[in-house]
Amino acid sequence: MHSLNVELGERSYPIEIGSGLLGNPQSLQPHIRGKQVCVVTNETVAPLYLPRLLDGLSGLDRVDTLELPDGEAFKTLDTVNRVFDRLLERRHNRSTTLIALGGGVVGDMTGFAAACYQRGVDFIQIPTTLLAQVDSSVGGKTGVNHPLGKNMIGAFHQPRLVIADMDTLATLPQRELAAGLAEVIKYGLICDAPFFDWLEANMPRLLEREPQALAHAVERSCRDKAAVVAEDERESGRRAILNFGHTFGHAIEAVQGYGNWLHGEAVAAGMVMAAELSRLRGDIDAALVERVRTLLELAGLPVAAPEGMGSGQFLDAMAVDKKVLDGRLRLILLSALGDARIVDDSPREQVVEALNCCGAP
Amino acid sequence: MHSLNVELGERSYPIEIGSGLLGNPQSLQPHIRGKQVCVVTNETVAPLYLPRLLDGLSGLDRVDTLELPDGEAFKTLDTVNRVFDRLLERRHNRSTTLIALGGGVVGDMTGFAAACYQRGVDFIQIPTTLLAQVDSSVGGKTGVNHPLGKNMIGAFHQPRLVIADMDTLATLPQRELAAGLAEVIKYGLICDAPFFDWLEANMPRLLEREPQALAHAVERSCRDKAAVVAEDERESGRRAILNFGHTFGHAIEAVQGYGNWLHGEAVAAGMVMAAELSRLRGDIDAALVERVRTLLELAGLPVAAPEGMGSGQFLDAMAVDKKVLDGRLRLILLSALGDARIVDDSPREQVVEALNCCGAP
Repeated sequence: MHSLNVELGERSYPIEIGSGLLGNPQSLQPHIRGKQVCVVTNETVAPLYLPRLLDGLSGLDRVDTLELPDGEAFKTLDTVNRVFDRLLERRHNRSTTLIALGGGVVGDMTGFAAACYQRGVDFIQIPTTLLAQVDSSVGGKTGVNHPLGKNMIGAFHQPRLVIADMDTLATLPQRELAAGLAEVIKYGLICDAPFFDWLEANMPRLLEREPQALAHAVERSCRDKAAVVAEDERESGRRAILNFGHTFGHAIEAVQGYGNWLHGEAVAAGMVMAAELSRLRGDIDAALVERVRTLLELAGLPVAAPEGMGSGQFLDAMAVDKKVLDGRLRLILLSALGDARIVDDSPREQVVEALNCCGAP
Repeated sequence: MHSLNVELGERSYPIEIGSGLLGNPQSLQPHIRGKQVCVVTNETVAPLYLPRLLDGLSGLDRVDTLELPDGEAFKTLDTVNRVFDRLLERRHNRSTTLIALGGGVVGDMTGFAAACYQRGVDFIQIPTTLLAQVDSSVGGKTGVNHPLGKNMIGAFHQPRLVIADMDTLATLPQRELAAGLAEVIKYGLICDAPFFDWLEANMPRLLEREPQALAHAVERSCRDKAAVVAEDERESGRRAILNFGHTFGHAIEAVQGYGNWLHGEAVAAGMVMAAELSRLRGDIDAALVERVRTLLELAGLPVAAPEGMGSGQFLDAMAVDKKVLDGRLRLILLSALGDARIVDDSPREQVVEALNCCGAP
């Protein structure tokens, strides 16, 4: 088992990465402070992994479970309200612990429910997708979507523990594995050039789900993200580089309707757009853009805009994105492989040209 | 003008107390960091004070307003969602400032919306009731009710500024003025004996709304509360004494239906119950209980349970209250005038006897 600690002062917490962790009481119970637990999961994950998790929770006074519908379309305030209903019906008090068992949607909603229930209760995250393991494991971002924008309602709320069990990746659809790899590749691009090189060499092992390769990729991704977040917990500055590819990606998700493109797929195409824009600014060369495109394609990810989505639609959708500060478009661009920075002054024409290079007329 | 600073490290903020503050750009605009503002108010307060506030905001790029329905019954997640709708429709970004103009309900919901919108934006509070001026001005508690419990969903989110304008109390119904006085009296009881003496001597001036007397009562109350909160921002320990009378009071509100009894009225009756329980434990004498009852009655407040509400209903309703820790009933009781403490081991029979003394059979 690999273990790493996310250092955030009194809010520090461990991420445990390995196999066979889910049903092991030793990995979970030392981190549960009260006597009540509520496991929040979804209808897809529950039949696969909930029984094993419940084995690991035996001996507690009260273990309630709640199965939510599966999918980004249900990542709403109404669904979070179902968590509040369950907690109150079952009289959970302020020392309860919520456990999220599922992908990013379950994790984001459960974390947000934990942030708001009685103004904040404990929260343990057991991500069962590669994307959630390498993304939501670190950073404390929780929340839900609004019809007018993704992740517009939320809170920063750190978990007390994250368990990334490689066993849960065995049943992950290939398309979701690839979506997770998009974020893994992102860490190499924005802050870890040697990891990008490793990914180019080891992508076939990852696609074959070799557990040691996956565990290495998860650990390295979490370490990279933790290093960025430790510098800037509340996202006032440098942390924004984690949004590389995301402003374009959110536009794709918003216009296509949440859930049609997977988040990681949208980010993959968005990273190519951001790389093209970096090239147009003269910051990186065409060869690097091609390496980015090639690795993403090798992972089975889209590298162009959805068919029929024009640059005008991108610009409209991006204007309400959180990364817009006082009306200026804020984008994360590459200065080199492994080096990203925040750019506030991208000319509209250059953004359009980058979009044109990626199939958005 | 009186001004006091609530000391919370980097989250410290000023409370300005006086007259003529509302329409004065100097009092507001130095505390607005971005160029966008959204004023959230209700249909009762808007016609009285919104135009004056908008005068004080002239010159900003964007000032949106939102009028919510008036009353505790609307303090729900659905109503907060209307704030999110407005902010997103009008493309408010992360540097927007929400301004709450109204009583505690408007303040709690607007503060919660500010805590969650894009994971946290700035928030200015302009409480227009005595209760909100002396209670929600300090402490950073925000949130909404749930059908199964009051204030069960929320966040800690500190305002950047509070303006308590005595002018806004001129139109306050007498019953709401009295409800505010309940919390004012509470501060004397739990931590400020000389202030309790002052209130006994000056209650007639307060009931006649003499501005100097009101400003003194508001300032003293905010100072007392700030001293308690500064010790314990996240309510893990001593801060709980601020809930004196509230566990009984919340039971009254829950059983009567929110909005039938005003919060301060429920707290007034609840404080008498807590005082009776303190006497039954032998901690205070009957003469002090009588002083409490007399001062509350002088202020025009209820000092007994609602007609027809029995002790069994109190106990049921209190079992889900936040103040219940791991199944034990946690109550705030008096050790002396101006001295409250947390008591975890109240025997059920004694609680029932205290309720009997207050008209709950």
